[in-house]
Amino acid sequence: MRVINVAAAQMGAIQPDESREAVVERMVKLMRDADGADLIVYPELTLTTFFPRYFTDQQAEIDKWFETSMPNTVTEPLFAEARARNMAMSFGYAELTPEGRHFNTAILTDKVGNIVGKYRKVHLPGHAEVDDERTHQHLEKYYFEPGDLGFPVFRTMGGIFGMAICNDRRWPETYRVMGLQGVEMVLIGYNTPSVNSQRGAEGPKKRLFHSSLVVQSGAYQNSTWVVSVAKCGVEDGHPLIAGSLIANPDGEVVAVAVTEEDEIVQYPCDLDDTVFGKQTVFDFKRHRRTEHYGRIVSQTGVELPPE
Amino acid sequence: MRVINVAAAQMGAIQPDESREAVVERMVKLMRDADGADLIVYPELTLTTFFPRYFTDQQAEIDKWFETSMPNTVTEPLFAEARARNMAMSFGYAELTPEGRHFNTAILTDKVGNIVGKYRKVHLPGHAEVDDERTHQHLEKYYFEPGDLGFPVFRTMGGIFGMAICNDRRWPETYRVMGLQGVEMVLIGYNTPSVNSQRGAEGPKKRLFHSSLVVQSGAYQNSTWVVSVAKCGVEDGHPLIAGSLIANPDGEVVAVAVTEEDEIVQYPCDLDDTVFGKQTVFDFKRHRRTEHYGRIVSQTGVELPPE
Repeated sequence: MRVINVAAAQMGAIQPDESREAVVERMVKLMRDADGADLIVYPELTLTTFFPRYFTDQQAEIDKWFETSMPNTVTEPLFAEARARNMAMSFGYAELTPEGRHFNTAILTDKVGNIVGKYRKVHLPGHAEVDDERTHQHLEKYYFEPGDLGFPVFRTMGGIFGMAICNDRRWPETYRVMGLQGVEMVLIGYNTPSVNSQRGAEGPKKRLFHSSLVVQSGAYQNSTWVVSVAKCGVEDGHPLIAGSLIANPDGEVVAVAVTEEDEIVQYPCDLDDTVFGKQTVFDFKRHRRTEHYGRIVSQTGVELPPE
Repeated sequence: MRVINVAAAQMGAIQPDESREAVVERMVKLMRDADGADLIVYPELTLTTFFPRYFTDQQAEIDKWFETSMPNTVTEPLFAEARARNMAMSFGYAELTPEGRHFNTAILTDKVGNIVGKYRKVHLPGHAEVDDERTHQHLEKYYFEPGDLGFPVFRTMGGIFGMAICNDRRWPETYRVMGLQGVEMVLIGYNTPSVNSQRGAEGPKKRLFHSSLVVQSGAYQNSTWVVSVAKCGVEDGHPLIAGSLIANPDGEVVAVAVTEEDEIVQYPCDLDDTVFGKQTVFDFKRHRRTEHYGRIVSQTGVELPPE
């Protein structure tokens, strides 16, 4: 048994004028609620409202949402609390590098507060220019550049951990690249609008179904735990789905959030539960046939067959 | 609207001594039950019992399960009935080529009985030698060689169709390679034992869950219809799961079998329902990041990170 007691720290709405200090206080409170957890996982862009719904062409207005170092003055109390509690953690934030590059980033710390892993979101959804056809904007392709770190995995706490962010979870390539590195637990934060901006009839129920479906299949098909954590509630009039959950390596949901607010979803995850699937039906070495997968890497878009 | 009225023709058990002629009669009867269908889809290895559960080292005993041509004398009545009903069809069979190669194969015909597509199963599950540790044998790697045709798609009936067989459905690569060719409907037949031969506690309920999960996510993640058809019931004491279903491009199950016997599951599938997903969240050209997918093709098995 290699049990990691995991707390998915769902967060309710963060309004545009809520300070990072106030958010960190909420995060610390959740840490206290997650008593006994080895690892606490917060959502994508945990420290602020989901700002890609707003457009600005003022660089200073853009950059105010970003962190230029981590940890920093504002997040130091969070790191201190984690260290004091001997709790590893993962959270997302907007990263501005010294070179002026903007990423949608997540980090993983060990139990003494050292950053042991960093991930930058690869699959940016939405659009790069204001689109008046939509009921609301989703300007991630404007605010961020695609991640440049691939899908790395990290050894810590006696296991192999990976991260993904929001829209990444819809892409089977995300889980597979980590599965091919033996990942045992994938940590995913998200901010997902409750309504499809291009198809209003696709409301929260279907959006939650999709969110769960892709996480469960990613878990099963790679025989890995997946921890999927929402920022939810209504931000500045814009509702986000909740539904934070933990999926086991069989693809089953073992724990799920019941509110649309700050809430801990906790489960003792035995990393050894990943072994059976990895050695049998998903023993990649025995069963994968890469000679037929070429298109997955050699082509980005669809190539239709001849008419 | 490009509606294809699809009949998933689930088949109950076929005993080892049941003649192919008797099976074809059952298939013809199902065709009559599927009145008005444009396309009827039968399971994997439709013409015989699921023989990979038996071991023999006698080549003649092996080859008796295989077809050396298609159509042939035994299946000609099936083709004739399909032609008379203006019904396209797909079914699986064991294929022995003139060169002596053995494949687990499926074909697709157009509405006038011409074979327009052939697929050979890529992901062979199970094992190549008798394994006494298992509660039952699953010797697909002994009976067949892996398919050599990749995952081709075929234009017919105004749409783009692909095929996969049984264990292929658990692998996201299967759907993705077809999705990258614009597939609008994937036809999958299966013979899936109700109990995991290496983990008896994994019974029919979990097996059905997995079967549905992978089909639904494959449909959603490629915005395609998927038709998943069982051979089920108890063959020679060996139970097989049923659960034939049709999933829409949103990943929702729109029709599902209620028996473990011969049964038609029918639904009018509009191929235009695939368009929205393909143009938005799963617009591959805009969103896929192949520079980070290399491992999917370059490595077959797991490569663990350094200790």
